[in-house]
Amino acid sequence: MKQVNTMPKLSPEQMKLLKDGERVDFLVRENRYIIQNSKFFPFSVDAVLLASFATFNQRSQLKIMDFCTGGGIIPLLLSHRTKVKIQAIEIQAEIADMAKRSVQLNRLEDQIEIIQGDLRQLKVTNQFLDVITCNPPYFTRNEAAELHSNPYHAIARHEIHLTLDQWVKKASQLLKQKGKLFIVYRPNRLDDLMMSLLEHRFAIKRLCFVHPKKGENANSVLIEAIAQGGRQGVRVEPAIIVHQDDGSYTPLMQEIYYGNH
Amino acid sequence: MKQVNTMPKLSPEQMKLLKDGERVDFLVRENRYIIQNSKFFPFSVDAVLLASFATFNQRSQLKIMDFCTGGGIIPLLLSHRTKVKIQAIEIQAEIADMAKRSVQLNRLEDQIEIIQGDLRQLKVTNQFLDVITCNPPYFTRNEAAELHSNPYHAIARHEIHLTLDQWVKKASQLLKQKGKLFIVYRPNRLDDLMMSLLEHRFAIKRLCFVHPKKGENANSVLIEAIAQGGRQGVRVEPAIIVHQDDGSYTPLMQEIYYGNH
Repeated sequence: MKQVNTMPKLSPEQMKLLKDGERVDFLVRENRYIIQNSKFFPFSVDAVLLASFATFNQRSQLKIMDFCTGGGIIPLLLSHRTKVKIQAIEIQAEIADMAKRSVQLNRLEDQIEIIQGDLRQLKVTNQFLDVITCNPPYFTRNEAAELHSNPYHAIARHEIHLTLDQWVKKASQLLKQKGKLFIVYRPNRLDDLMMSLLEHRFAIKRLCFVHPKKGENANSVLIEAIAQGGRQGVRVEPAIIVHQDDGSYTPLMQEIYYGNH
Repeated sequence: MKQVNTMPKLSPEQMKLLKDGERVDFLVRENRYIIQNSKFFPFSVDAVLLASFATFNQRSQLKIMDFCTGGGIIPLLLSHRTKVKIQAIEIQAEIADMAKRSVQLNRLEDQIEIIQGDLRQLKVTNQFLDVITCNPPYFTRNEAAELHSNPYHAIARHEIHLTLDQWVKKASQLLKQKGKLFIVYRPNRLDDLMMSLLEHRFAIKRLCFVHPKKGENANSVLIEAIAQGGRQGVRVEPAIIVHQDDGSYTPLMQEIYYGNH
């Protein structure tokens, strides 16, 4: 999302949180700052759509975790909608550090905890979660044509450290019964994803396909799956079209990004 | 589809093919008659969409079969697009008889063979198929709230005689390697369907969701699956919207039904 003029000016103290090569973007609708660095992936439309797609009640004891949080876009967006604490985990140390500083920039240290670490090593305690969001690496290691020479990008986008089955299994271990897993993924691996979810005893509750333009194939799919859920039937929601024919955002996307048409 | 004025007049010989309580509808785009009886299900938008979704090359040796053909709508529609022989199977004797008479009405006995019988009993020979189309019963036996008191409807719509796994397995036995299975189904059982297809070694190639109106959840899904196919990635095509807000068909649906806008 582009930086907009309505961004409140940063205080000198806030400016000190920035490192060389970093800039600050402003999330208009949520009134949040986010640090970006061109060395890493910028946050994506996918993450914004996932945060918007994720619905949950507002119980104060709710436990939420974001897997593969990157620069922390999803917890920052969700923090606008709920007062509960949000944990978020990122394996890449430099990116996790940037996410932590974004949390400080918004003075949300009491609400958002960024954990730098390997999801696969995350201990399963009896502190089970209610909600997990996940914008995981999409590409298999074998999709070499897509593999980025930039290692930050490669890890964020490819199954270098974390395979589909590993994160689905971890989610199944961490979620309470009937806990919700919200995912954004590539439709071309929908078969693998659904197989893995069903193997790990998730029920598929909602699907929503995202098309870049009207008349084009979907390039993302949003999924809500329920841990140890009884199969109650899949609901396929109206497709989201991101761009109008002229390249501008559709009214729906403007609403999701900016909160108005 | 409504009967239209452009239907060629039936000859006295053709009229003899009709039984009491039957009427003839005319498929404008394909120039085909189809007998309908209010005692049975009329052919559905789903069947028309499936015929349109099914694509195959025009080799003269191609072998095509339609499972659960009902009144024969799908072979009648496909016969307009290909010269190859089409077999179609229907378990209900009265409905299969009606389908046979529709074939005679169009003088297509040399191209379309209606088989009255139980798909489960169909012998697997070494005459493997290239293409199968299937508009199967959607509802499980347990969905009692939906179960029709009309037994013709119940058999056509519920898994009374034929379960999902049975027809997917039969398709996998009858298709050549890389043969194509085209299905129309309910999205709320997409999880079951994909599981069954993957278990029987199909690859999911294309998905297309059908929404009754813009902004409404999908009520049908069209699927192309490849027998013993290498997984090459699922393609989710642009959603089909059936009706405009005023209830009339969208331009796309008018094209599918009538061949023009």
